[in-house]
Amino acid sequence: MFEATKLGRTVSKEFYKEQEPDLRYQLLETQRRLAGSKIPVVVVVYGVDGAGKGEVVNLLNEWLDTRGMATYAFWDETREDQERPRYWRFWQSMPPRGQISILFGAWYMEPMQRRMQDLCTDAQLDDELKRIEEFERMLTEDGTLLVKFWFHLPKQEQKKRLKKLAADVHSRWKMEAKKPELPDYDKFEKISERVIRQTDNGLAPWFLIEATDRRYRDLTVGRTLLKAINTRLEQPDVVPHGSFSHAPSLPSEASALVTVLDHVDLTQTVDKVDYKKRLPKLQEELNLLAWDAYHKKRSCVLVFEGWDASGKGGAIRRVTTAIDARLYRSIQIAAPTDEEKAHHYLWRFWRHIPRAGRLTIYDRSWYGRVLVERVEGFANELEWRRAYSEINSFEEQLVESGIILAKFWIHISKEEQLQRFKDREAIPYKQHKITDEDWRNREKWDQYKGAVNEMVIRTSTEFAPWTLVAGNDKPFARLQVLETVCDALRKGLKGGHCDPHSLSPREDKR
Amino acid sequence: MFEATKLGRTVSKEFYKEQEPDLRYQLLETQRRLAGSKIPVVVVVYGVDGAGKGEVVNLLNEWLDTRGMATYAFWDETREDQERPRYWRFWQSMPPRGQISILFGAWYMEPMQRRMQDLCTDAQLDDELKRIEEFERMLTEDGTLLVKFWFHLPKQEQKKRLKKLAADVHSRWKMEAKKPELPDYDKFEKISERVIRQTDNGLAPWFLIEATDRRYRDLTVGRTLLKAINTRLEQPDVVPHGSFSHAPSLPSEASALVTVLDHVDLTQTVDKVDYKKRLPKLQEELNLLAWDAYHKKRSCVLVFEGWDASGKGGAIRRVTTAIDARLYRSIQIAAPTDEEKAHHYLWRFWRHIPRAGRLTIYDRSWYGRVLVERVEGFANELEWRRAYSEINSFEEQLVESGIILAKFWIHISKEEQLQRFKDREAIPYKQHKITDEDWRNREKWDQYKGAVNEMVIRTSTEFAPWTLVAGNDKPFARLQVLETVCDALRKGLKGGHCDPHSLSPREDKR
Repeated sequence: MFEATKLGRTVSKEFYKEQEPDLRYQLLETQRRLAGSKIPVVVVVYGVDGAGKGEVVNLLNEWLDTRGMATYAFWDETREDQERPRYWRFWQSMPPRGQISILFGAWYMEPMQRRMQDLCTDAQLDDELKRIEEFERMLTEDGTLLVKFWFHLPKQEQKKRLKKLAADVHSRWKMEAKKPELPDYDKFEKISERVIRQTDNGLAPWFLIEATDRRYRDLTVGRTLLKAINTRLEQPDVVPHGSFSHAPSLPSEASALVTVLDHVDLTQTVDKVDYKKRLPKLQEELNLLAWDAYHKKRSCVLVFEGWDASGKGGAIRRVTTAIDARLYRSIQIAAPTDEEKAHHYLWRFWRHIPRAGRLTIYDRSWYGRVLVERVEGFANELEWRRAYSEINSFEEQLVESGIILAKFWIHISKEEQLQRFKDREAIPYKQHKITDEDWRNREKWDQYKGAVNEMVIRTSTEFAPWTLVAGNDKPFARLQVLETVCDALRKGLKGGHCDPHSLSPREDKR
Repeated sequence: MFEATKLGRTVSKEFYKEQEPDLRYQLLETQRRLAGSKIPVVVVVYGVDGAGKGEVVNLLNEWLDTRGMATYAFWDETREDQERPRYWRFWQSMPPRGQISILFGAWYMEPMQRRMQDLCTDAQLDDELKRIEEFERMLTEDGTLLVKFWFHLPKQEQKKRLKKLAADVHSRWKMEAKKPELPDYDKFEKISERVIRQTDNGLAPWFLIEATDRRYRDLTVGRTLLKAINTRLEQPDVVPHGSFSHAPSLPSEASALVTVLDHVDLTQTVDKVDYKKRLPKLQEELNLLAWDAYHKKRSCVLVFEGWDASGKGGAIRRVTTAIDARLYRSIQIAAPTDEEKAHHYLWRFWRHIPRAGRLTIYDRSWYGRVLVERVEGFANELEWRRAYSEINSFEEQLVESGIILAKFWIHISKEEQLQRFKDREAIPYKQHKITDEDWRNREKWDQYKGAVNEMVIRTSTEFAPWTLVAGNDKPFARLQVLETVCDALRKGLKGGHCDPHSLSPREDKR
């Protein structure tokens, strides 16, 4: 695979001097056009040690306007990073639309290094590469331009370079994060080939760069990047998309009137005496479980979805009043802010992923994509269809990192909703809780029902099942929620401590 | 001072039961009205151990709608916190307009604890209290409603409570962050009195709450908060403001035509040969200094301001190309995003304060408040006038925390600007750099000049002096900038390591 990077191609000093100013000018012009577009650009820089990745990144910072770009290295993690799922830091480094992020090593570095040190097997590496492919497809389908550079050197050249670098006092800083011994070139090349082969595709191709001659390397990088951005700018509306034919349409709403929701037994109730006895007990248990989770550094994410007037707020309140205010955060999802709009729709949920030992409650969530955005047409069909697998992948990452996850759909009957709407309108201090929009949403009950049905079917996974809550009787619903949360915490905490950054915990499932 | 908290006031169970539902309802109603206002509310909760601060905070989370509020405890700092100036974490906890933040201990806890442990003197504590007063005045002048609760107990009552808490298995979690031995009540009370006396004022008064009887305590807190928010809602436009008469007007622009800017010798130039020799030397030095700063964990903030077409971008580029891209971030300040607009104007600059060992370049900065916002009327006179002392205080905090700070105003003559505008219009690929707005700004040259003059005079402090750069000759300006940055780093790094969280480094200046 790396033959093409060992051809000994060079560029003369004169040619470089002649070409460089024009290239720089074109890059700046292109960057200026990019700023007015809706395209975020992610440049990944990786390859063998000594190939000059740092030099290239600094050069790009010199050529481009640094005001529209940012560079991220993932060499010294903060505790903020360590306390969250591995991909959290990559989400934090995503550029807003129209801007460029340059990522050193990005999501490739850690799996490569683990494999190099035999901390994982080939099969585990392959699993991780599948995750990477999913992640990159998700970005590109959202409109991100991904440009991935792999820098390569022949073995002898690398040896020469690294020796020279180590000896040169002025370049000592380039060796910062490096180990003193020479890397195992053959092993690295073998693993590289595996990595590139599995993550090289039409959406996010690798550009293998021969790095022996610096001028050749630099001109090639500049031109490749220029071409990639210009090509993408010419087709701003053509978002490339992979195949996601694995998601055949469910029967339309009309013919699927009996859904999973219809199996929820809405006649279930609890009597008042029983409720008053069980509620404080469950809350006390939850209080202790939350502290236990804190001490074991296990985080928890609770997702609440449900019909308008289904009693989401009341259920959430019974959970929050049980937990010390220092341990949880309650996030109400409404219209995105403009910073949030400038990113992938999942970005704003990643923002709030809790630190180790804390709990985040999402009052509405990423499921808006396949509910309100689907029904109201804010997301087109391609977008909401692929959201199912994006969401499954997102939740899988949360669970793998050790986060305890519970998802609730609070279900009520259409008649019950009507009754609650009317009640609200009749009570003066509840009138603000009912708006025209609620009535309009109600008219689309069947469409929403279809969407909820598909959502539950497609995203009720082994690692993140939905709990359908029988909501016609509010006390019953609240107890069901509290019991489910306690159960999830109790089960999750049996595992004790957990490293959110362990690679490929998927192996456990084999 | 605490006599009023030892009166033994109680509330009967019946009275509490009768009052509580109405209080809750009113709090919710008030919170709903608050959400539609532009007022951020900060509730500070502090006082003696055992008074039930945690209980009160949890109660407020129960009474209020948690979707419009957040609770912050500052008991386990993340590395993110530790690597930045002490107040950074408080800025991160500020609510957007219309919402409520509840802060445990807030900016009072650390100084109190340090004084308790004799880690600082009374005089150092007083300095810190002045900082707190400044900070609180700045918040309230920006429209924030600050409600500060101090909970107090008689000595015997505290002793009883703490013993009981320690013995109760179910309340063991309340003792989490506490030391096993009993606190020194008398000493704490003495220091408390000092703290309250100096930070109690019309803008941000303390409410001393008798905490012996829980029902009395809780009802009092609820009612006090309710009244404070309602009072503030009734006068939404009346932002209280303190005295800042220490800032008499400078002479108006007309009569002050000779300003500090006129003393900048714009005839200074550097010849091409000299420039080509000195530039790479300075850049090499800067590269090594930046790495040195990284290893010594010293951060650096560079601020660039200047006339349109003064060559700010070019100067910044000469700095950034010298520094490894992993060490700096360049922030271009344009119109604020809507999240930024929902906070104090300094919030968006605090966001980007660098981690330990990193460098942030601000391309335009907080000085916009006293330049463009002043001249264009985006900030009213009260707002931009008080900005001088707010900015001085902000910069003092940066410097005290060990950040190396340099500020540049790149000056050019009015004629030179005209020439550059014309040049830009004549060169096709530079045309986009010149807009109608630039020409409009130019017409206000004298107004801007007056504003720049006042800015330099009022904010050139001992700890953060302005560097006025002679910008008519671009190479000269670039060398001047690089030399100043290198000097600042060299001097700053002599001090070696530095604890950004040491309290009251002001003592050094005595």
